[in-house]
Amino acid sequence: MSARLLIVGTGLIGTSIGLALADPDQVALSDADPVHLAAAVSRGAGRPWDGGRVQHAVLAVPPHRIAAVLQQLQDQDAAATYSHVASAQAHVQAEVQTGGGQTTSLCGSHPMAGREQSGPQAAVAELFQGRPWALCPSRDTSARALAATRGLALDCGSEPVVLSAEDHDAAVALVSHLPQLAASAVAAVLLGAPLGPGGRDPVRLAGPGLQDTTRVAASDPTLWLQVLSQNAAAVAPLVRALSAELDVAACALDLLAGPGMGSDAGLGMGSHAGSDADRGQAQAAVLDLLERGRAGRTRVPLKRGEHAAAFAPVAIAVPDRPGQLAGVLVSAAEAGVNVEDVRVEHLAGRPRGVIELLVHAGEQARAREALAAAGWEVLG
Amino acid sequence: MSARLLIVGTGLIGTSIGLALADPDQVALSDADPVHLAAAVSRGAGRPWDGGRVQHAVLAVPPHRIAAVLQQLQDQDAAATYSHVASAQAHVQAEVQTGGGQTTSLCGSHPMAGREQSGPQAAVAELFQGRPWALCPSRDTSARALAATRGLALDCGSEPVVLSAEDHDAAVALVSHLPQLAASAVAAVLLGAPLGPGGRDPVRLAGPGLQDTTRVAASDPTLWLQVLSQNAAAVAPLVRALSAELDVAACALDLLAGPGMGSDAGLGMGSHAGSDADRGQAQAAVLDLLERGRAGRTRVPLKRGEHAAAFAPVAIAVPDRPGQLAGVLVSAAEAGVNVEDVRVEHLAGRPRGVIELLVHAGEQARAREALAAAGWEVLG
Repeated sequence: MSARLLIVGTGLIGTSIGLALADPDQVALSDADPVHLAAAVSRGAGRPWDGGRVQHAVLAVPPHRIAAVLQQLQDQDAAATYSHVASAQAHVQAEVQTGGGQTTSLCGSHPMAGREQSGPQAAVAELFQGRPWALCPSRDTSARALAATRGLALDCGSEPVVLSAEDHDAAVALVSHLPQLAASAVAAVLLGAPLGPGGRDPVRLAGPGLQDTTRVAASDPTLWLQVLSQNAAAVAPLVRALSAELDVAACALDLLAGPGMGSDAGLGMGSHAGSDADRGQAQAAVLDLLERGRAGRTRVPLKRGEHAAAFAPVAIAVPDRPGQLAGVLVSAAEAGVNVEDVRVEHLAGRPRGVIELLVHAGEQARAREALAAAGWEVLG
Repeated sequence: MSARLLIVGTGLIGTSIGLALADPDQVALSDADPVHLAAAVSRGAGRPWDGGRVQHAVLAVPPHRIAAVLQQLQDQDAAATYSHVASAQAHVQAEVQTGGGQTTSLCGSHPMAGREQSGPQAAVAELFQGRPWALCPSRDTSARALAATRGLALDCGSEPVVLSAEDHDAAVALVSHLPQLAASAVAAVLLGAPLGPGGRDPVRLAGPGLQDTTRVAASDPTLWLQVLSQNAAAVAPLVRALSAELDVAACALDLLAGPGMGSDAGLGMGSHAGSDADRGQAQAAVLDLLERGRAGRTRVPLKRGEHAAAFAPVAIAVPDRPGQLAGVLVSAAEAGVNVEDVRVEHLAGRPRGVIELLVHAGEQARAREALAAAGWEVLG
């Protein structure tokens, strides 16, 4: 008996789909890499494909291979309907159309989920739980192909969202591709910075702000070149807008650094501020950027549907040794406080640190009291 | 009997200095804001200043007020030596010189420590423990003033580093002021992005990458305008370099988005790549940025003296409900594993999440085994 679903490509996404469905007898797996295939099979994602016809085939292969793999599968009538999971949609849609593939049976899609690791070993059944799964039908996509793809998304526990390929690409350009390039560019400037006197690296003075801002710069450059190239049309104007924001800031700072700087510089409220319109404008430009940045930050969801404003920090000073972090979280759990996130501010090199718990804003006061009552040093 | 030290300004830094010294009888406090002063006194940072002469006075006031406050104190011969804790040094140094203050008794300094919160309630005795404390003597600074400031830094548990005001300003521009503006600019672009069809915010598709990259954009704009204005000369060229990196990327992406894109786009290894030198150059430019970014990221210390490469992740899938995070950390603590940092990847809306522990690279295998043995679902 043949399987109902064929997963082509057993990397992180393909294997996670198989694990999410939790029905290996109904899932057939295919991969050009036999090691990946064996790993996915042994993890219980499905059985190796026997070549039999399936109801639906999902192509979890690199975006540039989708058109060719689709054609191959369609030539052997492998499935009734097809989908793919490309991180940029319009480009793949155009390639499939240009390639002369049969487009009515295909629905593009993109689960908004991932991890920094890749491959079948990093796969996890819960990857898609509660995450949006973009469905991007083309004008040609049949109702049957869309329904099959929606069913796959639902079966994986995600929340299907139908939007056009172009709207999808604009959204991921903004929330994923733009921050990636920003982080890479900050880290690249860092790399280019000269050492200080005596060969000492100025980066040694860094704190957690630099760590967070550059974290995604550690991602795989080759993978990201593909993603960015496939979504170049949507990403380019955003990167240009970012560059322009920073260029305005650089010009304003140049002006503020000029020789005319009086003792009121940096305030915009000193007694001479009115006498130098340029300086006032420059300060206004920098302040405007910082203020729009703070407003924009509140648009970033912490959990789906919830925003930064919904959460509040509780900071605790603890010895920086094993078990302290656990102890604080045990106390929080015993008090019934749900900790949404944790940050560890190392006061490094010495045996103390600050742990910051993020809790729902309405629970902050109670969490502070409960932790103080449990004997922890809660900071103001 | 008079105190030995006077702290002028009882915000986060001033009050933390008082708490770090843990000798309220020897510490006098002064603040123009009586509420701040009372809070600092009640927290045990020191006693209100009686106007008596002290050995050393540290000015923990906003940078733009340092020159005026110094003059005032010197006029009444309040202390033998003085220091300040400005986050930008050269500007204050110039202001004091221009202002005609007595400069031999003054040593500029800057403890490389802080928190996102401010005010005396956020102060913590351990703030400076193990952190660098920059000492930035001017040409006029006496050996006595430098020694007194170094002593203060040591008494607070920090590690004094002597460097010129200019070298200090260049370092903080790189590791603190540049990432701040980058985060603000990304968030500002986010703010400006239009809603999608049906008024749906594209930002709802965001994941943790956007959260991290924009975190410091939540900081206080007015405070940051001051900091950036006072260090404008050092920050401006870095912001311009960042803008230029992004402008090059935008141009490359524009080219990659062009109509000539073949089926090999995004790879740089397809059969037609050689036939389009411009496209190849554009891909090389983007890849170069991503690769330099990844290299630059390895320069960022996680703990002082330790870099990202020294740590390794251990990921665990858990139900997203109170107590699970604590349970994982208890298991780690029981196994003697020191958890350096924690990240919670919410698979939001559904009752499961992924917790990522950061441990020393050499402890990764043992940590994985211990947590799996304790019954946790350790991911590959």
